[in-house]
Amino acid sequence: MEVTRKNFRECLPLIEESIKKADFLVIDAEFTGIIHGRDVTMFDSPQEYYVTLLKGSTEFLLIQYGLCAFYWNETKKHYMNDAYNFYLFPRGRPGPEKVFLCQSSSLDFLSSQGFDFNKLIKEGISYMTEPMETRLRENLTERQKSYVTGNNNIPIPDENKQQIEDICKRVRVFLDEKKADSMEIERCNAFIRRLLFQELGSRFKKEAFLETKIVDNRARVLRVSRLKSEAEGLSKDTEKKEKEWEEVEEAVGFSKVARMISQSQKLVIGHNMLLDVIHTLNHFFQPLPSEYPEFKEFAHCIFPRLLDTKYMSSLPPFKDKVNSSVLEHLLATLSEPPFSLPKAESVEGRGYRRADDKLHEAGFDAYVTGLCFLAMHQHLARMRGDRPQRMPDPDCAALKPFLNKLFLAKTAYQDSPYMNLTGPDPTPSRDHVYYITFPKDWQRSDISQIFSSLGARPSDGASPSADDDCVRKHVSKLVA
Amino acid sequence: MEVTRKNFRECLPLIEESIKKADFLVIDAEFTGIIHGRDVTMFDSPQEYYVTLLKGSTEFLLIQYGLCAFYWNETKKHYMNDAYNFYLFPRGRPGPEKVFLCQSSSLDFLSSQGFDFNKLIKEGISYMTEPMETRLRENLTERQKSYVTGNNNIPIPDENKQQIEDICKRVRVFLDEKKADSMEIERCNAFIRRLLFQELGSRFKKEAFLETKIVDNRARVLRVSRLKSEAEGLSKDTEKKEKEWEEVEEAVGFSKVARMISQSQKLVIGHNMLLDVIHTLNHFFQPLPSEYPEFKEFAHCIFPRLLDTKYMSSLPPFKDKVNSSVLEHLLATLSEPPFSLPKAESVEGRGYRRADDKLHEAGFDAYVTGLCFLAMHQHLARMRGDRPQRMPDPDCAALKPFLNKLFLAKTAYQDSPYMNLTGPDPTPSRDHVYYITFPKDWQRSDISQIFSSLGARPSDGASPSADDDCVRKHVSKLVA
Repeated sequence: MEVTRKNFRECLPLIEESIKKADFLVIDAEFTGIIHGRDVTMFDSPQEYYVTLLKGSTEFLLIQYGLCAFYWNETKKHYMNDAYNFYLFPRGRPGPEKVFLCQSSSLDFLSSQGFDFNKLIKEGISYMTEPMETRLRENLTERQKSYVTGNNNIPIPDENKQQIEDICKRVRVFLDEKKADSMEIERCNAFIRRLLFQELGSRFKKEAFLETKIVDNRARVLRVSRLKSEAEGLSKDTEKKEKEWEEVEEAVGFSKVARMISQSQKLVIGHNMLLDVIHTLNHFFQPLPSEYPEFKEFAHCIFPRLLDTKYMSSLPPFKDKVNSSVLEHLLATLSEPPFSLPKAESVEGRGYRRADDKLHEAGFDAYVTGLCFLAMHQHLARMRGDRPQRMPDPDCAALKPFLNKLFLAKTAYQDSPYMNLTGPDPTPSRDHVYYITFPKDWQRSDISQIFSSLGARPSDGASPSADDDCVRKHVSKLVA
Repeated sequence: MEVTRKNFRECLPLIEESIKKADFLVIDAEFTGIIHGRDVTMFDSPQEYYVTLLKGSTEFLLIQYGLCAFYWNETKKHYMNDAYNFYLFPRGRPGPEKVFLCQSSSLDFLSSQGFDFNKLIKEGISYMTEPMETRLRENLTERQKSYVTGNNNIPIPDENKQQIEDICKRVRVFLDEKKADSMEIERCNAFIRRLLFQELGSRFKKEAFLETKIVDNRARVLRVSRLKSEAEGLSKDTEKKEKEWEEVEEAVGFSKVARMISQSQKLVIGHNMLLDVIHTLNHFFQPLPSEYPEFKEFAHCIFPRLLDTKYMSSLPPFKDKVNSSVLEHLLATLSEPPFSLPKAESVEGRGYRRADDKLHEAGFDAYVTGLCFLAMHQHLARMRGDRPQRMPDPDCAALKPFLNKLFLAKTAYQDSPYMNLTGPDPTPSRDHVYYITFPKDWQRSDISQIFSSLGARPSDGASPSADDDCVRKHVSKLVA
């Protein structure tokens, strides 16, 4: 089900219900970019990995969120899914102006997969962190108070005084003549409109109501409406204030869904989900802490049960049978013996079916991730001699080895396969790693030669680090 | 005329011809944002203005460029226009990956004006600076040499050796069997494909040709084609190299147009054009210098004749008659007496007409700016008693006061109305400006009171600076 700002309000109760009845939830997100500046290198520890992403990834925007809720159908004896594909775009008003990074290759890729950027910007649902929401609510309360006191007045610059006075006179005439119900003031820039709001507002408080109108989807004009009574003025004021609060609710937007997911405390599954988790926390909850241990605590507090299918597929008995754990490839592998994909239908219009072909749409990727999880989970059950059926409690022993461990794609094949949110991270041996410095003009062969007496074969890896100067290099596995 | 990567190559000769025959060129650009971080404040000098934009604006992307060439029709005795509206998007390949900033309100605004972001990302023309172009050409020359030497080989990690060997065996069988002409290798991630290119390439150099194919607009597969002869291998190699050079030309893209404009040395007009000039220099020519005097020299060297219609409209005899110099408002004002808009038709499909209503499309804004320029220019001519006709030489005395002065919107009404590219900037008096510090909890009224003995009226301006801490404030015009 596609969700934009157009249908978000109606969808909220449906989403709440889906989360409530689900055995587990699957999430997936699309971003405007992956990494800026120094990327993770293969010997980074989980802590260095986190700091690198914190610096290089968090200024990208989260623009699509997939949520797929899997719930058990006792009659059919299989899972059903409710799926939501949210377009997300944090608008500058009434929220704070958002400046964010994009990576051209990421936009290029999304575009080639049919991502609709026009829909994103026009109809994307807004979002914000909790501290921002609090500030916005406080500011609006203050601002609405100041409508009465006029505390925000600014002085009128000399060069604008004549223009403002002329317009005030025109409004006086309009009010006295009592011919039309409203008049429009055109061709004013934003600053003049601001001054007019202030001056007309204080001079004609009880006689006129002011508002900005957008004409032809473009030009802003100031409309002055004659008030028929003081009561009409008050009700227009109340209306305006209510509209401002509605705008705040709209601006908080998708964060409400993210907080529902958190509050449910249910098992939340993702594929290669570290970036999804990082962006989810950073955009909808709180700015990320700079310290790694605090991040682990924060993530675990918001999502007490996380499971990464990419990590799961990297362990026995899947490891040897899965050549590539790219989601699409994993799905293909798990569709063939010795594995099999489970049934997971949906009520018409509420979720996906296998025949849908929408890979890289966040909602569909979440659905596919859920299928992969069920296929692996049921394979394990069959190996234990159980009949595959409804998933047990997420805290059961069968899931324990996979819980709260986030796959670290770029270092996994070296030595830091995962981040452990609820305990110490793996500490890989560095006995076989040499850290060497050498003259700038040396070639790989020069290094191999020196290490050859220690048993290094010519093809062994001297892997350049990300540093440009070529002076520092890692040499790995030379004595393996 | 809309120009995208689809028709850019065919359009280049047309554009060249338009520039050649023009009396003057008008440009306009759309960006992904305006300013990030500290904005210009009203007492900034032109130098501070430049440094602020350099830090806060140059990481936004230029996504649409309007070019309108006005040329004289001697038969009709009025101007004609050729106009081009370019969608611009610097792709990551073969150029360098581009990471850039966006401002949500700017995208929101463009979207409300009908800007097509899907077209932008799918069909935008690429661009790059001159140093980047040089580097790209050098790199490709080097890379094409290395196809022969195999200098770029990387060692195969132990855990991938079996998979690579298995695939090599399959390819050997395919080549020996001589049944099909090509085979495809699927479900490999990018790293494995890289290793296969290297291994298959060196083992089956004379028997097979390798290429990556994208299937269903999504999955990448490696295709191995049987070579019928050594000559076929060579011609496929040549073809590949030629395609790579074509890709470089496509990546240089719009920069070629910008350089044509520069080389023409013609009068280049814009409305509020400082940001357009800054982005044009920075994206298509060279990274901007950090020093302000160098920037002035650089800008003047690339565009020897610039004219800003917003600056022009801020001088007598226009100043008093133009209430708002927002382009749309200026056009409306110049359509009414004592002004009049000139005729400026176009050959069908080559430019705009007055009836077109495409404000905020860069090409149309350039056209409208050209009309405004002609209207003001002809008004001046009439005041001198001349009959409005073809524009004289751009170096004539009539245009001199407006040439090479860029309007500084945010400080113009205080004291730094423009940047002078060919001479010293205006040095406004600071005699009436006080710089004061005061306790954090003071109100504006506390300051007014202290200055009242010096003649300050209560409404005079104490304008908060951009600093958050409220400790430093400017007080202006207190003794005016």
